[in-house]
Order: sequence, then structure tokens, then C-alpha cells
Amino acid sequence: MAGSAKIRLYVEHPLGEGQSVPLSRDQAHYLFGVMRLATGDAVALFNGRDGEWAAQVVDAGKKGGTLECSASVRPQGAPPDVWLLFAPIKKARTDFIVEKAVEMGVARICPVQTEFTNSERVRRDRLQAHATEAAEQCGATWVPEVSEIDRLDRVLASWQPGRNLMFCDEGLAGSGAALSGAGGAWAVLIGPEGGFSDSERSRLNGLDFAHAVSLGPRILRADTAAVAALTLWQTTLGDW
Amino acid sequence: MAGSAKIRLYVEHPLGEGQSVPLSRDQAHYLFGVMRLATGDAVALFNGRDGEWAAQVVDAGKKGGTLECSASVRPQGAPPDVWLLFAPIKKARTDFIVEKAVEMGVARICPVQTEFTNSERVRRDRLQAHATEAAEQCGATWVPEVSEIDRLDRVLASWQPGRNLMFCDEGLAGSGAALSGAGGAWAVLIGPEGGFSDSERSRLNGLDFAHAVSLGPRILRADTAAVAALTLWQTTLGDW
Repeated sequence: MAGSAKIRLYVEHPLGEGQSVPLSRDQAHYLFGVMRLATGDAVALFNGRDGEWAAQVVDAGKKGGTLECSASVRPQGAPPDVWLLFAPIKKARTDFIVEKAVEMGVARICPVQTEFTNSERVRRDRLQAHATEAAEQCGATWVPEVSEIDRLDRVLASWQPGRNLMFCDEGLAGSGAALSGAGGAWAVLIGPEGGFSDSERSRLNGLDFAHAVSLGPRILRADTAAVAALTLWQTTLGDW
Repeated sequence: MAGSAKIRLYVEHPLGEGQSVPLSRDQAHYLFGVMRLATGDAVALFNGRDGEWAAQVVDAGKKGGTLECSASVRPQGAPPDVWLLFAPIKKARTDFIVEKAVEMGVARICPVQTEFTNSERVRRDRLQAHATEAAEQCGATWVPEVSEIDRLDRVLASWQPGRNLMFCDEGLAGSGAALSGAGGAWAVLIGPEGGFSDSERSRLNGLDFAHAVSLGPRILRADTAAVAALTLWQTTLGDW
């Protein structure tokens, strides 16, 4: 972990030299109740805009507190312009997918409902909190936004012009080589555990912005597939 | 999933046309008690030697039963010659690493104890059962062997001549490009959550069979790193 602070905290507040940062009740509880920090202890802060800052505790209370920024530790990073689209599965696996998407450096996380998606209810706020925690732990200087779940057919119908779509499905030909040469904005789509329906598959194959990619001869769980697909993307087009 | 059978089962017994396959009490409980199969129902079988076979239930009992092989579904596959070496972490994450290693097609799974490894006790039989279940689900025709945990320094001291080692550590330079050109036998080593110690790192860097590889600018959890590293290996040297 970079810097001398062991704890990284995402805050909404502006960061800069000498800047005071007020803590919410939840943040104060985490830093002083759970992690047992006291006045003078170090915390690293980021807010997705001003880079990472070294900060010290200047006021530690039960219901709030204040940190003060001392020095810039790292400039603001920009996420590679890649989104992850995935079909939510069982709760624990969905949490894993969000965590892994953040570690893999995506800019946005979009749950999509496909024809074979079992889980249709997703608590966006819970997944967003999960993404924030993963960003704090993996050293990213931004937190990807988790969007509300939407139906895949609607997502494709209102697709952002110019954004490429890499999709991964068992039984599809294709390879990572299909990615090379096509820079710019991207999204990676991981199918549900039951695969795409025939109509979804033929629709995806007919889209001129979609690129089919193979993830090998074995059937991968959705969370495994998300990491594998994003590894292909990062090594070919991203920040690795 | 290949074939008409929805359930794939790993057995020790030889498989071939007309072959009867006796079931253990655990297998009978799973097929008839949990999955509610009955006489005549289809099961796909593999044993790591004879490929995948379509089989039918000919006798379903509470404490045992018999299947009979009808037709070969798929020839025996050979795993790419890559091992995964990893430092065990919390129980659930260790289970995930084993599951993901199987999906990613490794030939062998080796828990290693590094200087910063917290968890020193690993139940090999439990991890092996986990590997078997993952092989049944992901469509592999073999089950990688999980070896007993051993100390990393001892594993490196008795290293198999000719086997390359790809190791992944934060703060290390290197890229997947380091892999190309070096075929043959490989192992992928994932460090513990706390990273390698300085002495481990300098030892690894001094080994002529070791290749440092970067997994990008963010800190990956061990289970994420295992999938990402094996993706790099599979796309460069493996069966993807």
C-alpha cells in the first residue's frame, strides 16, 4: 500500500494542502471505533477528483471528527474507459463481481437483466458501498459508479455511439486478438450463469460495435469470467 | 454444458462402453437424495483417464447404486502443464482460489507457506473435494491434484528442473510479454495478501527459472490475482 498511512478512506469533500475534512458519523465510527485511530494518526484520503492525500486525525469523536490534509501522495488517476456489464447472480457472487471489477480498474459497473437472469433485484446502494470499500483497499483513486439495473435489450437499444462492446459467451468463437487495434471507449459484457438466450446471442452477433471473445474451453463462473475478460482487455488496451 | 446430462460426476472407476460403475454412499446420496435422480436418468461421468461418458442410472439405492456407461461424449483432455502455487488466506478466499484454479485449467494446485502467510493450516482433503466439485461444474475432464502445504523456500529448493515459474508481486516490473517464447512446463506463484518478504523477493528475482510479471497498477486480492495471472498464461502459452 502506498504512503505511510495504512488506512485509505474515500470522502466526498475537496482535498488540498491544509484542508480540513469533516467526518460523517459512519466514518468516525469506522476510524475511531473499529480501527482505533486517535488524534495524530495518519489516514490516506481520496475523493475521485483531487488525487490521494496524506491526512492526520485532528479531532476524534464518537459521532464525528476532523482530518487535516498535509501532503499530496499521488496525483488523480483516470480509470481506463471500460465499463463492466454483468447479470447479477447470487448475492455473495454479485458482491465478488463488484469487488473484482474495481480491482481490475473499470470506470463504471452496470448490472443488466438478461433473459436467463435469476436475480432481478439488486440493491444499488449496497453494491456502491461495496465498490467504495474495494477502491479503498486496492489503491484506486476513484470509485466506479454502480448504475441501476436495466434490461439488456434496453441497454443495447440506447447504446452510447462509439463505445465498443466485448462480450464473452460459451460456445462462441473469437479470441483476445479481436480487441487489438480498436482503442477508445469499451464495455465488457459477462453473460449470466445459464448463458445468453438464442435471441440475445443473435442480436449481440449482429451489432457492429460488438466483439465476441473466447474465455477458453472450460465453463467459467461469472465472477471468474469478469476477471479473465478484464485481464484480456487491460493487457491489450488498458493501463496494465 | 456439453451432452444431454445436466449432472457431471467425477468417479475413480474405469469408464467404457457398457461399463457398470458402482456408486459410493456419498455419490448415491448426492444423485438420488439431493438431485432426485431415478432409474433411467442421465449422468455424465469422467475419471481423468477415459474421457467423458454418457451414463444412465440402472440401480438407485439409499446407500449405493449403479450407473452404466452408454456412449463416449468427449475424449480425455490433458490439462495444460501449469501449476498454481498460492499462499492460503482466509477459508472462503482459499476455497475460491481452488475453484478458480480449476476453472482456469491448472494441472496441480500447491498451497505454499510464505513468511507473511497467516493461515498455516490447510485441510488438503477439503480443498481436494472442492477441486473435484469445480471440475464437475466447469466441464474439465480431469481434477487437478491439491498437494500438501509446504514452505515456499523448501518448494523452491527442490524445484523440478525445466519448470518455469511466473511470479506476480506488487511493485515488480515486468509484463506478460516476458512469457512469450518460453513454452514447456510452468507454475504460477501468487503472493500472500501482505506481499512477499524482502528476502523472498530477492530470492525469487535471483532464480533463473523465475519470470516476474506485473498485474497492473492496483493491488489485487489473491483470488483476483490468481485468475488474472492464469489468464495471462492461458492466452500466451495455454489452451485458450
